[in-house]
Amino acid sequence: MQGTTRTQPQPGSTYPPTDRTVPTRSADRASYDKELVHSILDEGYVCHLGFVRDGAPVVLPTLYGRIGERLYVHGSTGSRPLRMTGAADPGLPVCLTVTHVDALVLARSAFHHSINYRSVVVHGTAYEVTDPQEKRTALDALVDQVVPGRSRDSRPANKKELAATAVIRLDLDEVSAKLRTGGVNDEPEDLGLAHWAGLLPLRKGYDAPVADPGLAAGTGLPDYLAAVR
Amino acid sequence: MQGTTRTQPQPGSTYPPTDRTVPTRSADRASYDKELVHSILDEGYVCHLGFVRDGAPVVLPTLYGRIGERLYVHGSTGSRPLRMTGAADPGLPVCLTVTHVDALVLARSAFHHSINYRSVVVHGTAYEVTDPQEKRTALDALVDQVVPGRSRDSRPANKKELAATAVIRLDLDEVSAKLRTGGVNDEPEDLGLAHWAGLLPLRKGYDAPVADPGLAAGTGLPDYLAAVR
Repeated sequence: MQGTTRTQPQPGSTYPPTDRTVPTRSADRASYDKELVHSILDEGYVCHLGFVRDGAPVVLPTLYGRIGERLYVHGSTGSRPLRMTGAADPGLPVCLTVTHVDALVLARSAFHHSINYRSVVVHGTAYEVTDPQEKRTALDALVDQVVPGRSRDSRPANKKELAATAVIRLDLDEVSAKLRTGGVNDEPEDLGLAHWAGLLPLRKGYDAPVADPGLAAGTGLPDYLAAVR
Repeated sequence: MQGTTRTQPQPGSTYPPTDRTVPTRSADRASYDKELVHSILDEGYVCHLGFVRDGAPVVLPTLYGRIGERLYVHGSTGSRPLRMTGAADPGLPVCLTVTHVDALVLARSAFHHSINYRSVVVHGTAYEVTDPQEKRTALDALVDQVVPGRSRDSRPANKKELAATAVIRLDLDEVSAKLRTGGVNDEPEDLGLAHWAGLLPLRKGYDAPVADPGLAAGTGLPDYLAAVR
């Protein structure tokens, strides 16, 4: 993301825990550290956004962007959560979750199988962004969340495209991270069992870029794309 | 997964669309095909489970397993959604979503940036599994969802571990898949712009396994793990 829009939190500063962000178990895996939360959010670009419709939960995958202590989600003005936010004057209660799987943890016992992961859960109220300048900045942040630096190397949205896009914002107030790291935790009496145990780290990154067949002559792969591999 | 527990749906059979599973836009990206839904579910093992707590949405990442037209999710008997399901006699309304990101789609215009993805959204009611045999089978399915064949090569759960684990089930009744495939869709008037455009395919699979330092002598990497790489 652009350095100009990213101010670092004070080292050690945290989000205040609430009843919703303190887990009922495995509390040792929870963290409220702002730097950790930002780092997990900044490594991703797809979140799972939850909201309530007719009393039932709905969870949809969608892109997000972060600017400071605010997240942005966008979509067609005709899509369901965006319409619900715009229609609801007091905003739409949401839960936005970002998860990275880092490794499979294969234990000797079925019970101790696990996953090394890092996740962030944000509780709050989403509001429609109506200020045109904030909307433009948010859309740049959404593009740069996927590939840092990309928004400057693409044709900006025109008026018609801006009008067709709704953007909602969600402040980072009630936030927690949860993570599991490390190796296998088997029971001492299982350590002699002849089952293979260990970690299977997930492969990250991208395969070779596939250029659009109609690229303008002389358009090479930009440096910022070579860097993300 | 074990061939014995996986019966193939009739070719072309579909889940009946409902008001909740027909999107308000991009309906061409939606599918109700059972084989497609199963293939998306079987490629993953982490879902995002949504439920409503005190009127607000909660979305948590968790493991799942599929057996036929039923999904299973497990957790500590002390964790929140599991406790809510056990306490709620009529079951817990949930939305379970599985998403695979396949490629970044970088267009010449910011507006047409997108993601190639495949997702499944399941709406329904989750019930606690109380039958001991179904619970054991479900826990095997959860392990085998992560690494097919693994449940047979690990020490099964003992009585104490089974008692500490709650399992909930969710039938595949109200289900849709949504996917984007293919290349860049830029406006005709943008095709001459000198911005690189194309796909960045995500790297899939696993890096080299990291064996637990305390493996029993002579325990080599099993074939089913070599196969998942």
